[in-house]
Amino acid sequence: MKILLINGPNLNLLGNRERSLYGKISLKEIISNMEAEAARNQIEIISFQSNSEGALIDTIQQKGPACAWIIINAAAFTHTSVAIRDALLAVNKPFLEVHLSNIYRREQYRHKSYLTDAAQGIIAGLGAQSYYAALQYIIKREKK
Amino acid sequence: MKILLINGPNLNLLGNRERSLYGKISLKEIISNMEAEAARNQIEIISFQSNSEGALIDTIQQKGPACAWIIINAAAFTHTSVAIRDALLAVNKPFLEVHLSNIYRREQYRHKSYLTDAAQGIIAGLGAQSYYAALQYIIKREKK
Amino acid sequence: MKILLINGPNLNLLGNRERSLYGKISLKEIISNMEAEAARNQIEIISFQSNSEGALIDTIQQKGPACAWIIINAAAFTHTSVAIRDALLAVNKPFLEVHLSNIYRREQYRHKSYLTDAAQGIIAGLGAQSYYAALQYIIKREKK
Amino acid sequence: MKILLINGPNLNLLGNRERSLYGKISLKEIISNMEAEAARNQIEIISFQSNSEGALIDTIQQKGPACAWIIINAAAFTHTSVAIRDALLAVNKPFLEVHLSNIYRREQYRHKSYLTDAAQGIIAGLGAQSYYAALQYIIKREKK
Amino acid sequence: MKILLINGPNLNLLGNRERSLYGKISLKEIISNMEAEAARNQIEIISFQSNSEGALIDTIQQKGPACAWIIINAAAFTHTSVAIRDALLAVNKPFLEVHLSNIYRREQYRHKSYLTDAAQGIIAGLGAQSYYAALQYIIKREKK
Amino acid sequence: MKILLINGPNLNLLGNRERSLYGKISLKEIISNMEAEAARNQIEIISFQSNSEGALIDTIQQKGPACAWIIINAAAFTHTSVAIRDALLAVNKPFLEVHLSNIYRREQYRHKSYLTDAAQGIIAGLGAQSYYAALQYIIKREKK
Amino acid sequence: MKILLINGPNLNLLGNRERSLYGKISLKEIISNMEAEAARNQIEIISFQSNSEGALIDTIQQKGPACAWIIINAAAFTHTSVAIRDALLAVNKPFLEVHLSNIYRREQYRHKSYLTDAAQGIIAGLGAQSYYAALQYIIKREKK
Amino acid sequence: MKILLINGPNLNLLGNRERSLYGKISLKEIISNMEAEAARNQIEIISFQSNSEGALIDTIQQKGPACAWIIINAAAFTHTSVAIRDALLAVNKPFLEVHLSNIYRREQYRHKSYLTDAAQGIIAGLGAQSYYAALQYIIKREKK
Amino acid sequence: MKILLINGPNLNLLGNRERSLYGKISLKEIISNMEAEAARNQIEIISFQSNSEGALIDTIQQKGPACAWIIINAAAFTHTSVAIRDALLAVNKPFLEVHLSNIYRREQYRHKSYLTDAAQGIIAGLGAQSYYAALQYIIKREKK
Amino acid sequence: MKILLINGPNLNLLGNRERSLYGKISLKEIISNMEAEAARNQIEIISFQSNSEGALIDTIQQKGPACAWIIINAAAFTHTSVAIRDALLAVNKPFLEVHLSNIYRREQYRHKSYLTDAAQGIIAGLGAQSYYAALQYIIKREKK
Amino acid sequence: MKILLINGPNLNLLGNRERSLYGKISLKEIISNMEAEAARNQIEIISFQSNSEGALIDTIQQKGPACAWIIINAAAFTHTSVAIRDALLAVNKPFLEVHLSNIYRREQYRHKSYLTDAAQGIIAGLGAQSYYAALQYIIKREKK
Amino acid sequence: MKILLINGPNLNLLGNRERSLYGKISLKEIISNMEAEAARNQIEIISFQSNSEGALIDTIQQKGPACAWIIINAAAFTHTSVAIRDALLAVNKPFLEVHLSNIYRREQYRHKSYLTDAAQGIIAGLGAQSYYAALQYIIKREKK
Repeated sequence: MKILLINGPNLNLLGNRERSLYGKISLKEIISNMEAEAARNQIEIISFQSNSEGALIDTIQQKGPACAWIIINAAAFTHTSVAIRDALLAVNKPFLEVHLSNIYRREQYRHKSYLTDAAQGIIAGLGAQSYYAALQYIIKREKK
Repeated sequence: MKILLINGPNLNLLGNRERSLYGKISLKEIISNMEAEAARNQIEIISFQSNSEGALIDTIQQKGPACAWIIINAAAFTHTSVAIRDALLAVNKPFLEVHLSNIYRREQYRHKSYLTDAAQGIIAGLGAQSYYAALQYIIKREKK
Repeated sequence: MKILLINGPNLNLLGNRERSLYGKISLKEIISNMEAEAARNQIEIISFQSNSEGALIDTIQQKGPACAWIIINAAAFTHTSVAIRDALLAVNKPFLEVHLSNIYRREQYRHKSYLTDAAQGIIAGLGAQSYYAALQYIIKREKK
Repeated sequence: MKILLINGPNLNLLGNRERSLYGKISLKEIISNMEAEAARNQIEIISFQSNSEGALIDTIQQKGPACAWIIINAAAFTHTSVAIRDALLAVNKPFLEVHLSNIYRREQYRHKSYLTDAAQGIIAGLGAQSYYAALQYIIKREKK
Repeated sequence: MKILLINGPNLNLLGNRERSLYGKISLKEIISNMEAEAARNQIEIISFQSNSEGALIDTIQQKGPACAWIIINAAAFTHTSVAIRDALLAVNKPFLEVHLSNIYRREQYRHKSYLTDAAQGIIAGLGAQSYYAALQYIIKREKK
Repeated sequence: MKILLINGPNLNLLGNRERSLYGKISLKEIISNMEAEAARNQIEIISFQSNSEGALIDTIQQKGPACAWIIINAAAFTHTSVAIRDALLAVNKPFLEVHLSNIYRREQYRHKSYLTDAAQGIIAGLGAQSYYAALQYIIKREKK
Repeated sequence: MKILLINGPNLNLLGNRERSLYGKISLKEIISNMEAEAARNQIEIISFQSNSEGALIDTIQQKGPACAWIIINAAAFTHTSVAIRDALLAVNKPFLEVHLSNIYRREQYRHKSYLTDAAQGIIAGLGAQSYYAALQYIIKREKK
Repeated sequence: MKILLINGPNLNLLGNRERSLYGKISLKEIISNMEAEAARNQIEIISFQSNSEGALIDTIQQKGPACAWIIINAAAFTHTSVAIRDALLAVNKPFLEVHLSNIYRREQYRHKSYLTDAAQGIIAGLGAQSYYAALQYIIKREKK
Repeated sequence: MKILLINGPNLNLLGNRERSLYGKISLKEIISNMEAEAARNQIEIISFQSNSEGALIDTIQQKGPACAWIIINAAAFTHTSVAIRDALLAVNKPFLEVHLSNIYRREQYRHKSYLTDAAQGIIAGLGAQSYYAALQYIIKREKK
Repeated sequence: MKILLINGPNLNLLGNRERSLYGKISLKEIISNMEAEAARNQIEIISFQSNSEGALIDTIQQKGPACAWIIINAAAFTHTSVAIRDALLAVNKPFLEVHLSNIYRREQYRHKSYLTDAAQGIIAGLGAQSYYAALQYIIKREKK
Repeated sequence: MKILLINGPNLNLLGNRERSLYGKISLKEIISNMEAEAARNQIEIISFQSNSEGALIDTIQQKGPACAWIIINAAAFTHTSVAIRDALLAVNKPFLEVHLSNIYRREQYRHKSYLTDAAQGIIAGLGAQSYYAALQYIIKREKK
Repeated sequence: MKILLINGPNLNLLGNRERSLYGKISLKEIISNMEAEAARNQIEIISFQSNSEGALIDTIQQKGPACAWIIINAAAFTHTSVAIRDALLAVNKPFLEVHLSNIYRREQYRHKSYLTDAAQGIIAGLGAQSYYAALQYIIKREKK
């Protein structure tokens, strides 16, 4: 089983900057932790990060069909991209929306997500654990 | 270490009714699963459910101060109770907001939570795993 | 056949106060009239009034499952309680929403009901007859 | 005593079409049932249906003054006609607003009525019984 | 020179009803006063009242082209009819909007007019003099 | 096969007035062009124009059931008439909404249509070709 | 009898500037015309113009009590001054609101007036005749 | 003379928690200060605090009728409880709304009170003195 | 110690007009009462009233720096003047906002104050006592 | 003559997925049909699809100037991209907006288009025929 | 060439107070710097500051016509004064709007300016350099 | 010292198109002028333009850290891109927002900027001088 892990704009800077808001861990470390845990459960993580909306859509279209689930942190695109939503619906796979920070504590325009009402669930504010909890959910659910 | 687990109105019916929306598991089973996992980590779960806003506030006031964390599924009160928010702020403990269903897929008035912007994080739509993920987050965070 | 009759906050004062708005009849008299008519049709009225949202929810949960229909005048809770709505949906019985006064002639915030779009129908502004018309509707419908 | 019964646009099709929404009974049958019940109480029903707002206003102006009450189902005009409201206010007779379906379960723009805050009361969602309940209310009230 | 005088729904009742709001003068008297004054200035008043939006539009289309000005009290249609606005624009004659009562003192929905921003001017709240002032304006303007 | 072609208020003036906005072609010419093309495809066009909302509804009710499709340019009623929408739904035939001008370039209140979300499709801004494109769509679709 | 005539900010420039919008006549000429007409009816016009909100309020307070009517063109203060409204209510005299231009054809924020719902009536868009029509109304009304 | 003093949810914690926001004084001390001052003026304070909306309504219904005035700090219920407002109106006694903190400096949803427009007056932001000022007002007013 | 007492537009008319709304006491009497009470506490009241926003700002700028507190009833300017707010912030003294009437019982636009969220507290609806309570608060607070 | 045909994000998946919503035809087939028809009229279709907003803008800038018309289905970017609108305005060519589905039947945020008010016209809901109708319009218009 | 420099309420306090927000420089110094630079370019600066809206309007009316450009920092009046806007339009000179602070970082009501859409341009947040940049722009533009 | 100069979509067309709105100068010329002025002050301009949001973010991330300031004209992305805002915040450099045209004179959706409240300042409507003024501000500020 494969899981597609999509990370949106500016998440490549994770761990280097704004540590007070996003923590010290890098995206690389998060992905590496997820890959280890996934491997223990015979799952492969296919990971992609980009600052380009178009590249993210391309990847969802190309990699999504072969994956059972998608975990997505669309970052700023969460609030502005109908096109990513449409790509997720087009590949028609269940997905989980994750955020490092609690988006509801931030600016008003970050409270609106174009993804949430199409998502299976949302996890926000747990830092890197938002990702791990999403992975655990899929592992447990697929085991049933 | 203790965790206060608060469940709001109608959650006592879990597993008996509206299974298509909320699943088959009962609140009792969820709590029991949490207690087992917590015990493995030397944590005690103090659990309380009520259909009365006042009783929930009383409990948060009385049990909250002795607990390190609060996990709360305020159910319908999520969207209407400023008083529960005030109680949580008054006891001044970090808390996690959990929901069985994805509240952002439902009626417009369920998209607004009086709790989220004061919460550490929110987990919604993972069914019973919303609770377990909250517990895992606390376990891991307290271990650091 | 049983009908659960729920009356919300301040309706216990009916007939004693604000007669120009709500009329001279007491809640007791209304219920008594309904019981007589119901008895003539082999129907039992189970009646409950409370100023406490929690107590109303408890009663809907406990008495609702044994009843075929619910008639509810949630009074002020009509406009503020998502939890009562959830309780009504949880017990999954058809219900009618009644109001003594015409709520659309009053303050703007009384025009919104959390119950109406889940109700079978609404009757407002007919005074005590709002209740009787609801009862007649159920009687006739059940006869078919 | 006379009651003016006004039916707005498309209600002439009742019973022929969209039965799942409006039921199988025709407008003719509803009126005939009302006339029978009215006759038992020495009341005459003056009935008028039109798809034309102007014709409805003309009739309210011409027939209204000789009637003690008006029962009106303005159908789609409920939500768009200030002119019918003005006609009702001009003839200055108490009136009841009735709807076959529960308008609050339908499109947002059907939740607003130009008539309700000028009406004695509103009955919606009881099918044909919305009409009969209105008639019963008038009968009982006039008997006092 | 001709002036088309258009009166909308319920204005035929003027003077008979709701005198406290609209005064004791009938529409007939107002028109007759206008005709007299117009005749003194070699102007012909072509007057039309209807409760039907369609009839008003038909008249504007048919009589408008031969008239130099239009004076219109669209009554309730002021607030709901885009079609009358379109008819006025189609015949492309300058027009004045008049109201007996001060519409800005009344319900919120009477504050919006579909005609005003296309009108030369608006006169409201002067009772019958709203009409006479409109006529005076045209007389004086045409004299220049 | 028959197509009902409905034209709303002021469209009878087409070609005579406001040519810069609506073009020089008359409604008669448009209909005549459509009839010719329809005839070539064994389709009959039943055409009706009125400035009266009631007359339009009457016609939809009376002629609609015998037609396979409806093409409607409700003109100003597009934005104000729930009753025409209800008539279209009552006769339960697929319909296309057409507009000569691009309604989204005009006043804000012309951007809202009571018809569009019930229509098969919308064509606006192509002048007379909005009608012809609607006809072509039906011809091609029926051929399949 | 006296009439207080109040003119708000920038009206002192009338006739000198923006003639396409406001016409060629100066405020002085308008007042002079009004004084002549008023004199013919034994009425004295007390006129005041200022660009200062405070000066306008002072004048309304000081001159208002001795006058039977007030005619006011508050110009830009129409849309922003609650204090002028309060002054008018404090002196408790009937007043007419006049505007040279049709304020409903202009920016959105000019559609809202803090005065209109307290005024006897409003006249807008008739140029200098807006003032004269107001004067005529008072003359005729006082004659009754 | 008696005054009913109502305190809403979380006010029982006063002085123990969030001292920077609410000050160091306990609710007990405030009440005790009020009782002393009241006693000096032959007034009895009947005091009640609860975290339960229902209990507050019960008390207003039961104790209110024997009291001349009500002083209420409904805390969080200020912003969400129509039922408490209805109870206050039902017992029909003049009441004053008090708040320790300045609610207009806080979250947007705390700016709206369901009580204020039915209250005699409001005092907010004076800490414990908000209560004392309310008491002084009643003492002075009753002395007249 | 000095207190600056600022009174806004139309308050100079207090006691002469609109007594049913504002009471019979004059502004002079209120100030005189305050001066007496202040003198008993070694406090000097510096009082200023104007109908001019500019004059009020000038005074706040000139007198404010020498005062320990400001009490302000900005009357109508409460709802429209950002400039007075800026002046209060510029002199950087704690201030109390007072109103004779309960502004929340009046027009919607009087519910918004540009001052409140910068004020220490607000007292409204207590008539002249709104001023005295403000004075008492300062006296007691300065004594600590 | 050349026509630039722009297709936005996810339209490359057409025909493979979500067939119930978008039909079975592929984008390739649509383009091929258009090219054939265009060729019959001596028109060349220059076609471009991308999931990247930037690539679409680049193409409009580079290919647009040599084309007489643009046909654009911006898909999800319709609702979020001011930049594509600006590109279309920059190249200053008339364009038609097309959509396969009826966007007004879908989510609220799909009802707003940044393109429509700058477009010549809009065609939505006709499936592949939305494209063909756009082409026909250009062919006929250019023939005149 | 002359430039009129208008400064609104509370700007006279510049440099003395709230230095963290507005900087240490006084208005006098800013003006003096501008005069020096203007003199180097044969431009005269006519400068005026007032806390009175009326005085600002008077000055714009009196000094504006002789000036080629206006630079205005209307301070708080930016957000509330339609009258200053009207005065600027009346004198019909191009003007630049300047602000010391970035008004878009501050309260929501400071984001709206009644001047901007009539201004040539806006410069905000550059401190005293907002003024100098405006002057430079005029110098360079006039040189062309 | 380095300054990063970012230009958003369609600005590459500057000077070639829409000259009436944006002027005749090309982006190349603006940059060249800035480079010359910067060089005179020992500053290096690093310039980048793209129609792709992703490319702009990549550049801000890669070039931003080595620069002391950023000047950005995000063009259409100003109003739609949260991701560019996040990139600017991530690199944590002070930046100035510039616009050639006065965005507040244009469509409503251009009045909202996702950048302004994070910017040091904004300059709009000065044409190419908006850029130069930004550069001057940095030069002067860095000199202090």
